[in-house]
Amino acid sequence: MLDELAHIGRDPSTNGYVRDAWSAADLELREWFRGEAAKRGLDLREDRNGNLWAWWGDPSREPGVVTGSHLDSVRQGGAFDGPLGVVSAFAALDLLWERGVPPGRPLGVACFTDEEGARFGVPCVGSRLLTGVLDPGRALGLTDDEGDTLADVLIRTGRDPRALGRDDETLATVGAFVELHVEQGRGLDAQGSPVGVAAAIWPHGRWRFDFRGRADHAGTTRLEDRDDPMLPFARMVLAAREAAARRGVVATVGKVRVSPGNANAVPGLVSAWLDARGAAERDVLDLVTELAELAEGAQVSEESWTPVVDFDEPLRDRLADLIGSTSEGGGPVPILPTGAGHDAGILASAGVPSAMVFVRNPTGVSHSPHEHAERADCEAGVAALATVLEDLCR
Amino acid sequence: MLDELAHIGRDPSTNGYVRDAWSAADLELREWFRGEAAKRGLDLREDRNGNLWAWWGDPSREPGVVTGSHLDSVRQGGAFDGPLGVVSAFAALDLLWERGVPPGRPLGVACFTDEEGARFGVPCVGSRLLTGVLDPGRALGLTDDEGDTLADVLIRTGRDPRALGRDDETLATVGAFVELHVEQGRGLDAQGSPVGVAAAIWPHGRWRFDFRGRADHAGTTRLEDRDDPMLPFARMVLAAREAAARRGVVATVGKVRVSPGNANAVPGLVSAWLDARGAAERDVLDLVTELAELAEGAQVSEESWTPVVDFDEPLRDRLADLIGSTSEGGGPVPILPTGAGHDAGILASAGVPSAMVFVRNPTGVSHSPHEHAERADCEAGVAALATVLEDLCR
Repeated sequence: MLDELAHIGRDPSTNGYVRDAWSAADLELREWFRGEAAKRGLDLREDRNGNLWAWWGDPSREPGVVTGSHLDSVRQGGAFDGPLGVVSAFAALDLLWERGVPPGRPLGVACFTDEEGARFGVPCVGSRLLTGVLDPGRALGLTDDEGDTLADVLIRTGRDPRALGRDDETLATVGAFVELHVEQGRGLDAQGSPVGVAAAIWPHGRWRFDFRGRADHAGTTRLEDRDDPMLPFARMVLAAREAAARRGVVATVGKVRVSPGNANAVPGLVSAWLDARGAAERDVLDLVTELAELAEGAQVSEESWTPVVDFDEPLRDRLADLIGSTSEGGGPVPILPTGAGHDAGILASAGVPSAMVFVRNPTGVSHSPHEHAERADCEAGVAALATVLEDLCR
Repeated sequence: MLDELAHIGRDPSTNGYVRDAWSAADLELREWFRGEAAKRGLDLREDRNGNLWAWWGDPSREPGVVTGSHLDSVRQGGAFDGPLGVVSAFAALDLLWERGVPPGRPLGVACFTDEEGARFGVPCVGSRLLTGVLDPGRALGLTDDEGDTLADVLIRTGRDPRALGRDDETLATVGAFVELHVEQGRGLDAQGSPVGVAAAIWPHGRWRFDFRGRADHAGTTRLEDRDDPMLPFARMVLAAREAAARRGVVATVGKVRVSPGNANAVPGLVSAWLDARGAAERDVLDLVTELAELAEGAQVSEESWTPVVDFDEPLRDRLADLIGSTSEGGGPVPILPTGAGHDAGILASAGVPSAMVFVRNPTGVSHSPHEHAERADCEAGVAALATVLEDLCR
């Protein structure tokens, strides 16, 4: 199935994927999801926040077990981050069907909207709106690089922006959630295991630093007359790395917007996004405070913040045992922490029993066209997911 | 006339202008130019490189006197840089017409294409192609932010890319060139004069620094495993300012492209444009060498380089005397150097007797929506230009 999606949103010059939320590529992926649901006779629902649900059984009678992930991508991302979880969800349902195992509870496949936040800057928009941790007014006002708001974009794709917000009715259908995902590190590779289970998601957040100066001519304005925001921005980049190393966390500036962006003009505004994560919340938040103090005059706004997420301990241990017992070695598969945010983390924080299954990534590279997982490992992932779903639906 | 153009390409959120070469706004401005030529019965020609010429008299019999400037803009630029010179050219012709002074030589108004280089990164494309200092193959391969080449864009607007290149036939029609321009500093304001004449254009150039690293996940890649090009880029920005101050030149990083540009990914490539200028060529070139050595591993390419341009000394002195003699004080108007590049500089370097007339800018701000010139000063500029043209056409 992953092959069917290989052409959608691929940049032929890099083989990287560009699948912004609500873009033409994303709409095509959503159509593919509808088609897969229809093929299997699943009941398709799009909730008020644009998340897609394909149900085997009726979850309005009894909360179901849900698996899935997202189909959007970071810009120039790989083929696995997101789609592997959705494709594996359908494949696991197929396995249960072939085995003649009708689920004892409703079983659903979910596709969450705008997990990566590539277009509007805020990640996990679909699951955050669903669970009420993202204010719909704030979400609707987010702008993309073209200056279009999320509200504009939703209207253009035929959605009703007024419908956005916490959706208890949909949330009540989700009795448990299991997300399969390609690992974004080399933990499984180091332990020689094709599949593992998530222990926790590091606390992580995204902050926007707006450095304001005065746009001016690059040739005729003396250095001493300039107010050039590129300089404090550059100091912040270097300070972020130094402070992150000192505090034992990670910090990244991966997105910068320079305005007006002329080679022959001193810029008037430099906006930079800081991504910071670590094992301990205090260390991450202290890093941001330190940088905000150093960048005096810059306007610093929090775009997202997710405290540490510890996945349900009995659930994750049961999954590790269960997957291990049906695979070669027999012992429990590894339980790993991760620095990456996921919709499963948002649902876990909202009180939904949630877990994650990781598939080995031999290089650990992710958010890049070089992201990779072997076919055999992906198949092991599907088998593990089917085992887990069969157990949870019992 | 400037009011007629006020709406074209204006960003209503900032009042800044976005008039990229060959954009819809630029095409509308070119149509306006054709209309002004037609109103006055001037003979309109578009040369092989897309520059526009409106002739009073036939320059194929005898080289003429040309005045004009450009209509494109830096992004978020002001209303005066470029258009003031074109509008004043037409207005000066009107003054000569009203005075009943038929020119003794052909008299032309020119509009040069893509002076600012906002779209493709190289300034003065029209005059550089015309004079042969820009290779047409290189120009055609330049790409804009959308990845379109200049060749693509020319074809889309109905031009023939194969026609580009040095154009001796057109160049032979230009016996002398006078460009009127808003001053991009406060020299005239300091000397209390509404109008002045250019002495020289500082040597100036533009270099592109490509810092390559490895795109990776911002949460799961350890600091020590990263190859993050944002760090050497930030060091270059700070070093450029320090070295420019030490060497007595100016250096600016006003345009940056981060790829892939995801807030949650370590970038794989940071491209930065360095603009450097100064009174002495050696100091400017040494600065670039110093930065290229510091940014080891970065690929540094020269996008443009214009050696010092000394405008024809007898011509500029004659203009200063002439303009002064017809204005209030009676003495010669100020003769000023400038750090800004212009098409007049390109023509001067190609051996065309050229000069520039500056109009006072009370704040000195340019390449910004705050760029300004008083109406009375603009009128003084038109009167000065008419005096100069009358003299040169005698």
